[in-house]
Amino acid sequence: MPVITITLIEGYDEATRRRLSENLTDAARSVIAAPLDGVTVLVNEVAPANYMRGRQSRIPGPPLPAPQEVVEEFLKAMQARDLAAARKFLSDDFVMTFPGGVSFTKLEQLVDWAKPRYRSIAKTYERFDSLATAGESVVYYFGTLAGERCDGSSFSGIRFIDRFTLQNGLLTSQLVWNDLGELAKSNQSCP
Amino acid sequence: MPVITITLIEGYDEATRRRLSENLTDAARSVIAAPLDGVTVLVNEVAPANYMRGRQSRIPGPPLPAPQEVVEEFLKAMQARDLAAARKFLSDDFVMTFPGGVSFTKLEQLVDWAKPRYRSIAKTYERFDSLATAGESVVYYFGTLAGERCDGSSFSGIRFIDRFTLQNGLLTSQLVWNDLGELAKSNQSCP
Amino acid sequence: MPVITITLIEGYDEATRRRLSENLTDAARSVIAAPLDGVTVLVNEVAPANYMRGRQSRIPGPPLPAPQEVVEEFLKAMQARDLAAARKFLSDDFVMTFPGGVSFTKLEQLVDWAKPRYRSIAKTYERFDSLATAGESVVYYFGTLAGERCDGSSFSGIRFIDRFTLQNGLLTSQLVWNDLGELAKSNQSCP
Amino acid sequence: MPVITITLIEGYDEATRRRLSENLTDAARSVIAAPLDGVTVLVNEVAPANYMRGRQSRIPGPPLPAPQEVVEEFLKAMQARDLAAARKFLSDDFVMTFPGGVSFTKLEQLVDWAKPRYRSIAKTYERFDSLATAGESVVYYFGTLAGERCDGSSFSGIRFIDRFTLQNGLLTSQLVWNDLGELAKSNQSCP
Amino acid sequence: MPVITITLIEGYDEATRRRLSENLTDAARSVIAAPLDGVTVLVNEVAPANYMRGRQSRIPGPPLPAPQEVVEEFLKAMQARDLAAARKFLSDDFVMTFPGGVSFTKLEQLVDWAKPRYRSIAKTYERFDSLATAGESVVYYFGTLAGERCDGSSFSGIRFIDRFTLQNGLLTSQLVWNDLGELAKSNQSCP
Amino acid sequence: MPVITITLIEGYDEATRRRLSENLTDAARSVIAAPLDGVTVLVNEVAPANYMRGRQSRIPGPPLPAPQEVVEEFLKAMQARDLAAARKFLSDDFVMTFPGGVSFTKLEQLVDWAKPRYRSIAKTYERFDSLATAGESVVYYFGTLAGERCDGSSFSGIRFIDRFTLQNGLLTSQLVWNDLGELAKSNQSCP
Repeated sequence: MPVITITLIEGYDEATRRRLSENLTDAARSVIAAPLDGVTVLVNEVAPANYMRGRQSRIPGPPLPAPQEVVEEFLKAMQARDLAAARKFLSDDFVMTFPGGVSFTKLEQLVDWAKPRYRSIAKTYERFDSLATAGESVVYYFGTLAGERCDGSSFSGIRFIDRFTLQNGLLTSQLVWNDLGELAKSNQSCP
Repeated sequence: MPVITITLIEGYDEATRRRLSENLTDAARSVIAAPLDGVTVLVNEVAPANYMRGRQSRIPGPPLPAPQEVVEEFLKAMQARDLAAARKFLSDDFVMTFPGGVSFTKLEQLVDWAKPRYRSIAKTYERFDSLATAGESVVYYFGTLAGERCDGSSFSGIRFIDRFTLQNGLLTSQLVWNDLGELAKSNQSCP
Repeated sequence: MPVITITLIEGYDEATRRRLSENLTDAARSVIAAPLDGVTVLVNEVAPANYMRGRQSRIPGPPLPAPQEVVEEFLKAMQARDLAAARKFLSDDFVMTFPGGVSFTKLEQLVDWAKPRYRSIAKTYERFDSLATAGESVVYYFGTLAGERCDGSSFSGIRFIDRFTLQNGLLTSQLVWNDLGELAKSNQSCP
Repeated sequence: MPVITITLIEGYDEATRRRLSENLTDAARSVIAAPLDGVTVLVNEVAPANYMRGRQSRIPGPPLPAPQEVVEEFLKAMQARDLAAARKFLSDDFVMTFPGGVSFTKLEQLVDWAKPRYRSIAKTYERFDSLATAGESVVYYFGTLAGERCDGSSFSGIRFIDRFTLQNGLLTSQLVWNDLGELAKSNQSCP
Repeated sequence: MPVITITLIEGYDEATRRRLSENLTDAARSVIAAPLDGVTVLVNEVAPANYMRGRQSRIPGPPLPAPQEVVEEFLKAMQARDLAAARKFLSDDFVMTFPGGVSFTKLEQLVDWAKPRYRSIAKTYERFDSLATAGESVVYYFGTLAGERCDGSSFSGIRFIDRFTLQNGLLTSQLVWNDLGELAKSNQSCP
Repeated sequence: MPVITITLIEGYDEATRRRLSENLTDAARSVIAAPLDGVTVLVNEVAPANYMRGRQSRIPGPPLPAPQEVVEEFLKAMQARDLAAARKFLSDDFVMTFPGGVSFTKLEQLVDWAKPRYRSIAKTYERFDSLATAGESVVYYFGTLAGERCDGSSFSGIRFIDRFTLQNGLLTSQLVWNDLGELAKSNQSCP
């Protein structure tokens, strides 16, 4: 039953306004059990000269890239081992943490670390979850890993989950959990 | 800069209205880079007789329990091995999935499965993330595990993450990832 | 899809606010083909000190009696031939017009006119329609007449329609059409 | 004193928006005795991307033709005995009922029925009333009939009233009452 | 024609809300030539839990004393030469400036300065003007002075104007202009 | 904390809308001690067809010239002794009153009166204050006078204040106070 109105300085594109309306709908329904059809969202756009706070016009905050899309672009670049492209999505203080608690701040460190572990690896995504907190956006991605071990045998269906944080549209952290632990044991090092 | 107004049928308690306002704030800021202080949320409450959709008064959807609190209560009951209490938080179609892809629908199955693996285990939570999707609420919890192996030796600092889904305030699934894989190998079965 | 908000000075009872919401819903749907469930009406009540027009507080206009109810009460009194009660619903300039264009300004005139026409008559109502125009409320009522002729024979199922106008809750006119014309012909005058 | 705001998806033409504002004004004043000058109506238009109900954009309901205009066009075609043109205004389940309770579903039936009754007939309209109910629009029209009898004599000033119902801009019924009863009696059949 | 809505956290008394509405009306009409009766002001009050900016509840700013009333109380105390009472209306950095550009920061300095100039003086107020600027409230007061010279003769009808500034309800400055210049010349010093 | 929304018929230029927002901000802060950054003003513009009061469209009141600018233009013309230009800013019932209570209705009277008093005079403005009352706009201007006496000697730093009233953008009165009293005494008449 809630009717939600959001007043914005005009200038956001349609996709941004729709994303906003969807997120506001979900936010309301995470707190009250309103039927989906009962939630109305209205976006009210005003010209820049029609908004004043503290006797000052304000410059509207730029739309943020959809966090999921940033993550997907980053993962695509990583999959292609295009580190230069992947690096563009990282903030200066980016940290990634892998099973066993191993942490890296550079993509090259990750590549070096992974090299003796498997010849190739690919992720199949089942599902992502995205949320905003007071300070950052968070994206979860989970699915399964498949690839080739150093001994040439293959593996698949290995469960994994990644948690990314973003600030101002850039990745600030990646946490990784997966079921590769057992795999690693039985594996011989790649040359 | 956004000003968000949500009109509700009156009757929600203060905590619910505040949670709603916080979630709406976060939802807006997940899409546009508005400074925190620039986001205003107004809750407008109307009497039941003052709301009509389709020429009918509507009964407001009940407030949902904060998903994080449901999860915490469930985990507390599980930690205390009070299965009866824990079961109250589960929907009929609850499924839990553990590393290696092992799934259970009954808490007893989990207990039996865990018994030969470690004598005791405790979770330390670092952080939770909560979000609402069109159909369900999702709660992520991650931190570290500590406990005692069957051979009496102890372990700690083992990374884990849980993903819970909730519908109508009840848990519908729990997915678990952790770094226990290596541990399991080196462990001897508990008697 | 329309969302209608009406701001009122507080003080109207629930029934009045609901009637208002229903009428606003119908008014919108008489102009645009919105599905019934897509029309939301919100009544926003403000304290008298919270409304000012022209730098002056305003006294809210009193709720009007539902025109249909005024008409029903009047008709009930007429049916019981309680002219004193019926007269209370009439404005000073009330005029009633019957088939053939006969007009009366007093209820007694009607009674005298009807006397030689039938011994008794009763109305069965099928349906009423009510509307507001810029200056007055209009109520239509139609159904069938049944009664006894002066010669003792009975009649029934004679179609009729009444049109009433109201100002400030009082009847200002009644126009009557019916199929009694043929009946009148074949009838002999009551003594 | 009421201030009414209606939020619409943009796209309705000016005439439709004005008709909407007039109807909303009348609807409010049919329930509370607010002075005409105290009723303010604001139409708030939002882009299609700025309206979402149930997480979905909605297609605005098309504007309905003013019911009075549909009726007038229909009557003009009937007056000209242009049945093909008149038929375009009828829904498939259109029924018309005349004095004495005679009903027709085809315009041809009406023409055949009327033929032996008068050589020609014309309606002079005094006034129409239009209203919307939950399911349909209703238009009342009343005035007087004039024409020529089969014996060549003329008549005029015969009171009549028509009640039309419309759904989705098409006529679904016409109920007719008039004072022709007496006329019919004294009339000889047209050849 | 403007409709102004102001949303406040509830708790302000009626007089404050009315003053607010009057000032908003005047503010609008200082910029656009709207007829007085065309300006509607609605005060929308929300519970403290229903207002959030920057994800925080806010404590509503206290109502300010009407600047004119502060000035009147101060002038009444000065007229009665009750310096202790008058001092309560002054901020710490209060400065008063008199014709000829003489400035004082203490009320006693004024009294000493005035003593040789006239035996008694009283102000008759014709009119006050009050306004708010970004940082302070300003009150203008003008009228005429009457009193007794040191030689015992009397004077009256001497034009004066005072300009007061207030911050947080306390006087920060008083500027005085008047036509006493000529008077002073012809006057002999009081003993 | 107040959120102020003003709904206008569209057509006012940006400067007018900004001035309106500033004045509304100041108006609110003259009554409640809200921090500047907590006052949000939204201007909501509707098409002419989207505003109806009393079932009638309304022509928006024209924007008034900023009262301060009218006064400044008038003073500039007076300074240049361009009486024809200055006269354009005056309403028909304009009255100006000078120290000693001398009043004029024509600019020529002022010029004649001033001629024997000083050879030349110029105003330095320190500050203006502008406000709207129910019936008129008021502008205060104060600063210092400098010029040349008839005996050729010069003066400067003489305090003055002007109070202007405006209706419909034209000056209706000017009240003047200054410290020239003493100056006048010691001055010899200009030839």
